[in-house]
Amino acid sequence: MMIYLDGSATSYPKPASVSASASDAIRNFGFNSGRGGYQASLRAAEKIYSVREKIGAMFGISPQNVAFTKNCTEALNIAIRGSARKGCHIIISSLEHNSVFRTVHRLSEQGIADYDIAAFDYNNDSCIKNFEALINRRTSMIVCTAASNVFGAVFPIAQIGALAKRRGIRFIVDAAQTAGVMPINSKKDNIDILCCAGHKSLMGLMGTGFIALADGETVNPFMFGGTGSSSLSPQMPDFMPDMLEAGTLNNIGIISLGAGIDYINTKGMNNIYSHELSLCANVYSALEANKNCILYTPAPVYGQTAPIVSFNFRDYSSEKTASLLSKRGIAVRAGYHCAPLAHKHFKTLDTGTVRISPTAFTTKKECEFLLNTLKKLK
Amino acid sequence: MMIYLDGSATSYPKPASVSASASDAIRNFGFNSGRGGYQASLRAAEKIYSVREKIGAMFGISPQNVAFTKNCTEALNIAIRGSARKGCHIIISSLEHNSVFRTVHRLSEQGIADYDIAAFDYNNDSCIKNFEALINRRTSMIVCTAASNVFGAVFPIAQIGALAKRRGIRFIVDAAQTAGVMPINSKKDNIDILCCAGHKSLMGLMGTGFIALADGETVNPFMFGGTGSSSLSPQMPDFMPDMLEAGTLNNIGIISLGAGIDYINTKGMNNIYSHELSLCANVYSALEANKNCILYTPAPVYGQTAPIVSFNFRDYSSEKTASLLSKRGIAVRAGYHCAPLAHKHFKTLDTGTVRISPTAFTTKKECEFLLNTLKKLK
Repeated sequence: MMIYLDGSATSYPKPASVSASASDAIRNFGFNSGRGGYQASLRAAEKIYSVREKIGAMFGISPQNVAFTKNCTEALNIAIRGSARKGCHIIISSLEHNSVFRTVHRLSEQGIADYDIAAFDYNNDSCIKNFEALINRRTSMIVCTAASNVFGAVFPIAQIGALAKRRGIRFIVDAAQTAGVMPINSKKDNIDILCCAGHKSLMGLMGTGFIALADGETVNPFMFGGTGSSSLSPQMPDFMPDMLEAGTLNNIGIISLGAGIDYINTKGMNNIYSHELSLCANVYSALEANKNCILYTPAPVYGQTAPIVSFNFRDYSSEKTASLLSKRGIAVRAGYHCAPLAHKHFKTLDTGTVRISPTAFTTKKECEFLLNTLKKLK
Repeated sequence: MMIYLDGSATSYPKPASVSASASDAIRNFGFNSGRGGYQASLRAAEKIYSVREKIGAMFGISPQNVAFTKNCTEALNIAIRGSARKGCHIIISSLEHNSVFRTVHRLSEQGIADYDIAAFDYNNDSCIKNFEALINRRTSMIVCTAASNVFGAVFPIAQIGALAKRRGIRFIVDAAQTAGVMPINSKKDNIDILCCAGHKSLMGLMGTGFIALADGETVNPFMFGGTGSSSLSPQMPDFMPDMLEAGTLNNIGIISLGAGIDYINTKGMNNIYSHELSLCANVYSALEANKNCILYTPAPVYGQTAPIVSFNFRDYSSEKTASLLSKRGIAVRAGYHCAPLAHKHFKTLDTGTVRISPTAFTTKKECEFLLNTLKKLK
């Protein structure tokens, strides 16, 4: 038996209803949605639309403004590259994943945009001021993760969004680490473009993600191809979601994501979050009491921390610790977690970190096994 | 019961082994491949690699040069946009899908490239000459579909590839409509970049595709993000497949694609092709004998036609015919099939066409039902 503590990478196991929906989708909805002139194709399109509605309801977005992507990375590439104009200035946070960092860095290499990095601060006012101080006349977008995928630190998204709105700056949020566990809402949080993975806490299969535009927002298309609409035009359609959905969709994954959202709604998002955060709080306390463990963040706080704890063991490399734990059946991720900026911020660039991120199905007992293993580890 | 004749859109049903592999993958390989420091993550990476090997073996590509995409459209966008240099000239065929047409058109709108369209010809020599006549000093790539997704017409890919090689021009092939039914090989066919869907005749789930580079070829990265490699660098890795695989892969889909390829290898690609083509030949003959049906191509010929037949019924719009067939349980696609160029070429821009494309599982009886239905249709 494996003790799975890599939920921030992808949720595992999937709820039984999600696996079942995938099998059902293979049998009943594996048709090119809306392109074919037959009932099964139309039914597939309706089913896909129902998932847009579920996402719309969860995040405060109009269903037709939800476009499906293969992962959060694609969504962020569309959002950032599709918003960039020659000469624009971009602000990102100091905890961004490479899906944001490498994307804006590329824009700067191409001479399209330049960017600055706003330092995260656990004090909300300071954090917001750090963003505000970097705004200049050319600043056209702020890109910020809702929570660090390495340290669980949560940004005051609504307030950064309010700042962006006040200054007429587009606000793009990477919700990969909070969607499905912590509430996030385009309207309440002043988000112009929400980017998200479907296979993490939203419980869908891998191969899923989405970009969701607030009403009135638009981006340039990123990929060009068939949409089953305006087919005689050499250009992509100018309406959502078609303008961002070229080629055949991942019906099976998308439908599984719908089942994942249903699962969360039935279980209660807050119940899932409370469960995961309380596991993290226990883990944090025990690691704090273990003199061989090094922690980098304050203790998890309800509403201010995503269910993630990063640590290191003795002077071991994070990879060595993860490997020792793996031999004992414990699955954690080590290294940089594709987020060098976050490691620079928390001063863990030399070692990386061992990351513990429970899922909705992780038990207290499993976490205790981890903690006991770490007590005995040499 | 539905009679499914929309195989060119996606294969349906999937072989039982493909559906089973998807369920198995959800349970046993739903981990972030190669990123986590634990056994299950490594096993997932090995499993994914085994699919690169299967694809490599089928298409004459080194396994590490196979990068997975969400569909063929993404693969073509990577190939074309990643090959374009300011001021370059591109030649595409007159039967290209919008995944190629809209992509090169966008490059021309951006002032990056200009393009010309080489007319398909059923005479191979004429066809090749049509490409050759358009080559100029700036021509840096030829992009050609292996077969039309609307009319099944097959290009002399190996010879166009030889021409491109002789002239030092990159040759990019869209194999979406032939892969899995007709042999195509990067080496034998002189293909520099092969782009393909995974969910059509290769039998994988929707949400799959790949781009495969011949040895020594490279493209610019298209999407930027985490790769689990060179994580401290602000740039994408410069090696395959990482440089083209940002973010979490669709493990489930990819593994299903591996099962699809196994299925084809067991069944014999040529057996599948012969089956589908003989169904098409029967359908073509019967439509030819039906005075209400209009055909646009010569009769299907072994090795020269992909298993696709396009037609129209009386003066009906293709959509009307498809709708009438749908009411009788027959699933066909009508309209432009995202390929306006092909309709321009075959002079069907006014009506579109009704497309019949059987799958490996389509029976003679099902085709007869279609033909009898058409006989009685008013």
